[in-house]
Amino acid sequence: MATPTNQVFIAVIGAGGVGKSFLSQLAALAARKPTPKLSLCYISSSKKAAFNSEYSIGIETALQELASSSKQPLSLPQLADHLAAAPAKAVLVDNTSSQDVADAYPLFLSRGISVVTPNKKAFSGSYKLWQDIFTAAATAGSKVYHESSVGAGLPVISTLKDLVDTGDEVTKIEGVFSGTMSFLFNSFAPVEGSGGQWSAEVKKAKELGYTEPDPRDDLNGLDVARKLTILARLAGLPVESPTSFPVQSLIPKELESVSSGDEFLEKLPGFDSQMEETKSAAEKQGKVVRFVGSIDMTSKSVKVGLEMFDKSHPIAALKGSDNIISFYTKRYGSNPLIIQGAGAGGDVTAMGVTSDLIKVLSQIA
Amino acid sequence: MATPTNQVFIAVIGAGGVGKSFLSQLAALAARKPTPKLSLCYISSSKKAAFNSEYSIGIETALQELASSSKQPLSLPQLADHLAAAPAKAVLVDNTSSQDVADAYPLFLSRGISVVTPNKKAFSGSYKLWQDIFTAAATAGSKVYHESSVGAGLPVISTLKDLVDTGDEVTKIEGVFSGTMSFLFNSFAPVEGSGGQWSAEVKKAKELGYTEPDPRDDLNGLDVARKLTILARLAGLPVESPTSFPVQSLIPKELESVSSGDEFLEKLPGFDSQMEETKSAAEKQGKVVRFVGSIDMTSKSVKVGLEMFDKSHPIAALKGSDNIISFYTKRYGSNPLIIQGAGAGGDVTAMGVTSDLIKVLSQIA
Repeated sequence: MATPTNQVFIAVIGAGGVGKSFLSQLAALAARKPTPKLSLCYISSSKKAAFNSEYSIGIETALQELASSSKQPLSLPQLADHLAAAPAKAVLVDNTSSQDVADAYPLFLSRGISVVTPNKKAFSGSYKLWQDIFTAAATAGSKVYHESSVGAGLPVISTLKDLVDTGDEVTKIEGVFSGTMSFLFNSFAPVEGSGGQWSAEVKKAKELGYTEPDPRDDLNGLDVARKLTILARLAGLPVESPTSFPVQSLIPKELESVSSGDEFLEKLPGFDSQMEETKSAAEKQGKVVRFVGSIDMTSKSVKVGLEMFDKSHPIAALKGSDNIISFYTKRYGSNPLIIQGAGAGGDVTAMGVTSDLIKVLSQIA
Repeated sequence: MATPTNQVFIAVIGAGGVGKSFLSQLAALAARKPTPKLSLCYISSSKKAAFNSEYSIGIETALQELASSSKQPLSLPQLADHLAAAPAKAVLVDNTSSQDVADAYPLFLSRGISVVTPNKKAFSGSYKLWQDIFTAAATAGSKVYHESSVGAGLPVISTLKDLVDTGDEVTKIEGVFSGTMSFLFNSFAPVEGSGGQWSAEVKKAKELGYTEPDPRDDLNGLDVARKLTILARLAGLPVESPTSFPVQSLIPKELESVSSGDEFLEKLPGFDSQMEETKSAAEKQGKVVRFVGSIDMTSKSVKVGLEMFDKSHPIAALKGSDNIISFYTKRYGSNPLIIQGAGAGGDVTAMGVTSDLIKVLSQIA
């Protein structure tokens, strides 16, 4: 049922890189498309929040209002009450990677509040949470969109949904789903030239800001496993969790428990020979090694880890920190539908969030 | 304003390859998602139509009902009257490539009837028709979607819209937009090996059903020019028509006016040396020749024709009859957002139509 007013209230949790980019896109959107009227009614970081009884925060001035606010963030149930009491429909934009916020999506959705987010946690956690989220949305008629949870702004989730919703049969999904892993392997084992030493490439990637503060959070493969979990579920495999299928970690056993990312980087050169052997083995076959995820719908298997590719394969030819995702389906036959481009970064991640918001607005306003 | 009932009436014009694939996808969709209730109320070919005062045609039996019908198609104004009088909202699905039907979109849209189509004619004809269509939709609140007008089911138009709507700045769009041209050049000038003779490849493509009945309708470049016109307009360039920018035709001047496609194919070998020279010139630079379209937003220029690419370029590495479309934008930087895959065929074209219909349903029902 459409709301009688032509206004929508937006609450934003998270004011980091993605949150800031999103606010700037939201300001431009509100200026360019005055209908429906977009009213920012809540903004919070982990420590503070800005909101008021008029449900009105300036979009352009939100970050200043947040910085100068003396209010603590509302608890999630309080925020749900606040939004449910808004004078028109409300959308929660979760720009965090918080499990707590993710766990509260069923609450928001069941109260008619739509959710838009790049947060992977809700869709790659327990299968029960996944079911609770979509059941709550279906029951209450609220919407939930999460394009940026895989491949940032690349149209990965919308394309998979379109394939499934129009009755195509997905047989396999394969790709490079991590900008960090893409950068590391494109530098370590390039198609042309010999590439660098593994530990040196990891160090460089960290210095360039391409890794998490502790690079082990990328190298353990869990980020890729989370994305595969989301895609597998959308394709129809009820994957229980991101640890319920084989995930290859690139952290040497001996370094799993060292106390810090710095100590890890210091000791990593001692293990370069392992990665060097993998690279040589591939080279001997005229191939290169890449860190990929794949979902085989026929055998119902999901896996994440190192694989070898011909140098002419699109996965081998990837550049920089780009992602690539190939959808093999019955309709598309032997040549897959391929989507490629930057899969990380504040602006492109926020783009996925903003385009999701536009889709929600077209349905609720 | 949402319709009070939870039913939507669908009228389908066109029962060729795309039309048949669409009906089969529509039947599966109606069975899988019973809400809103999808009622097929009209189906027509160029000669016949099936419809009744109950607004009810069996989706599964539509083609038989059409074959055994003795009714002539309604005129387009009559069809608009018929749909406007339906007991709930209606969607017109135009699975033809007819200019007449395209010219009537403003009429349907202005009467609240949404339009979904793979027909390029409406969006690549005169700029006035383009404006009339979107003005009528905006005024009446009806929807118009045409994903399959470029790249069939590939998410080309939705991605470009998302980029523009979220405020990214498109700087360049480049790609191979014709399955026929893709097949011809991937065979004529492959990355590995020497390829075939030009006229022999054209003949083969025709025999395999990859060309129009008269291959000149592909070789004149107009199909690609129409697609470029659509993308340029969506990106913000008010291109007047598909003949208002440079389009290179691959039809030798001397063969433009021969009377039939067969005569053209018979005489084409006499002109093979021209294409052979182009291929050799590229080879001397270690490149291959491809038939591409490009839109440069900075210089506001659109062009269609032959260009040379390094053998490692994604456009050179294309396979079979795949399309590839690269979006260069401010946010995506030097590595474009790339979409690749089959850009022609009944099933994938119908997929774009069906997914558009799903988007329209989510907004009007």
